[in-house]
Amino acid sequence: MEPTDLDIRDFYNCYMIIVQGAKNVINACRECKVRRLVYNSSADIVFDGSRDILDGDLSFICPGKFKDMLIDLKFQAEGLIRLANNIDGLLTCVLRPSNVFGPGDTRFVPLLVNLAKAGLAKFITGCGENMSDFTYTENVAHAHICAAETLDSRVVSVAGKAFFI
Amino acid sequence: MEPTDLDIRDFYNCYMIIVQGAKNVINACRECKVRRLVYNSSADIVFDGSRDILDGDLSFICPGKFKDMLIDLKFQAEGLIRLANNIDGLLTCVLRPSNVFGPGDTRFVPLLVNLAKAGLAKFITGCGENMSDFTYTENVAHAHICAAETLDSRVVSVAGKAFFI
Ligand SMILES: NC(=O)c1ccc[n+]([C@@H]2O[C@H](COP(=O)([O-])OP(=O)(O)OC[C@H]3O[C@@H](n4cnc5c(N)ncnc54)[C@H](O)[C@@H]3O)[C@@H](O)[C@H]2O)c1
Ligand SMILES: NC(=O)c1ccc[n+]([C@@H]2O[C@H](COP(=O)([O-])OP(=O)(O)OC[C@H]3O[C@@H](n4cnc5c(N)ncnc54)[C@H](O)[C@@H]3O)[C@@H](O)[C@H]2O)c1
Repeated sequence: MEPTDLDIRDFYNCYMIIVQGAKNVINACRECKVRRLVYNSSADIVFDGSRDILDGDLSFICPGKFKDMLIDLKFQAEGLIRLANNIDGLLTCVLRPSNVFGPGDTRFVPLLVNLAKAGLAKFITGCGENMSDFTYTENVAHAHICAAETLDSRVVSVAGKAFFI
Repeated sequence: MEPTDLDIRDFYNCYMIIVQGAKNVINACRECKVRRLVYNSSADIVFDGSRDILDGDLSFICPGKFKDMLIDLKFQAEGLIRLANNIDGLLTCVLRPSNVFGPGDTRFVPLLVNLAKAGLAKFITGCGENMSDFTYTENVAHAHICAAETLDSRVVSVAGKAFFI
């Protein structure tokens, strides 16, 4: 999907929330002398919808094209967060969870349950062997804690980098 | 200046030319197996208008706020170019000239000359000691040649970095 696929105002609003929002957070961290910033991105940034990803790892390359505009802008926000690393004493890194599920989820699993209840889950998209990744909420929270602690450790180099969860 | 200072369509057009344009160039380089990409950015990205910069060097920190939207978007485009480094065999770096002057200039120096002819150059902004940087066209061209050659050399590390000219 390209920006041209969106109504200009919708694109502008997405930009303001995702990219300008990330810039505002970076500037606020600098002004308030925050030392560590962990950005919650998305594993979707490596998936452009054109081919399956099996056993992908951190060497997996961002395709440069994205399946939707939100993810495109998310990748740009990630980039600004990573480039802000080690400037004015601010250390940054990026985490990329997949579809999140777990306690307190009011949208994802309830959506699947409601679809099934409504009899709208009786079909399969594709060959039936498609797999999708999910990340449990507690793992997302735990990853953020590990990232923040490791940013300070200076032993393991996570600063300026991005990690899938 | 923030995105909100611009009419949404103007902002969108600037985004499409500067940021989407840089992404299109990166994707085209990947598709055509281009090995080296030198991006022409601007020294303005370190100047937010709030304070003078004297004897600035490469350690100079981008303020995170910019004097206008074009430079803000230019900084984002730079970031995408630098993050594209060393992916799919593409090496990238960024050059940041100041105000360019030299043979073939149809705008900058002619503008100053016309202002002077029209008697509109008889005032000084500020204390009269303000300095502004200028980069001669041939130095810009020479810098691009040096950057492209050095990207290949693997002796000096310029890949993924940005340089003022
Ligand atoms: N949900 C997923 O499956 C998933 C997967 C990958 C990445 N992400 C990313 O994780 C992030 C959060 O997604 P989510 O699904 O949890 O969204 P959500 O809307 O469920 O939760 C966002 C939370 O942020 C809070 N919030 C919003 N603005 C705030 C502010 N200015 N200050 C403090 N808190 C604020 C909201 O109150 C809300 O509790 C997003 O950036 C999303 O792109 C989500
Ligand atoms: N002029 C300056 O003082 C200055 C200072 C710093 C940075 N820059 C940057 O340098 C770049 C060039 O600026 P400029 O002042 O030389 O602009 P310019 O408009 O004078 O020159 C741009 C050139 O690019 C060519 N061009 C445009 N689209 C093209 C395409 N798709 N394929 C091939 N060629 C194309 C145009 O024909 C033109 O010759 C800009 O990115 C600008 O931000 C300029």
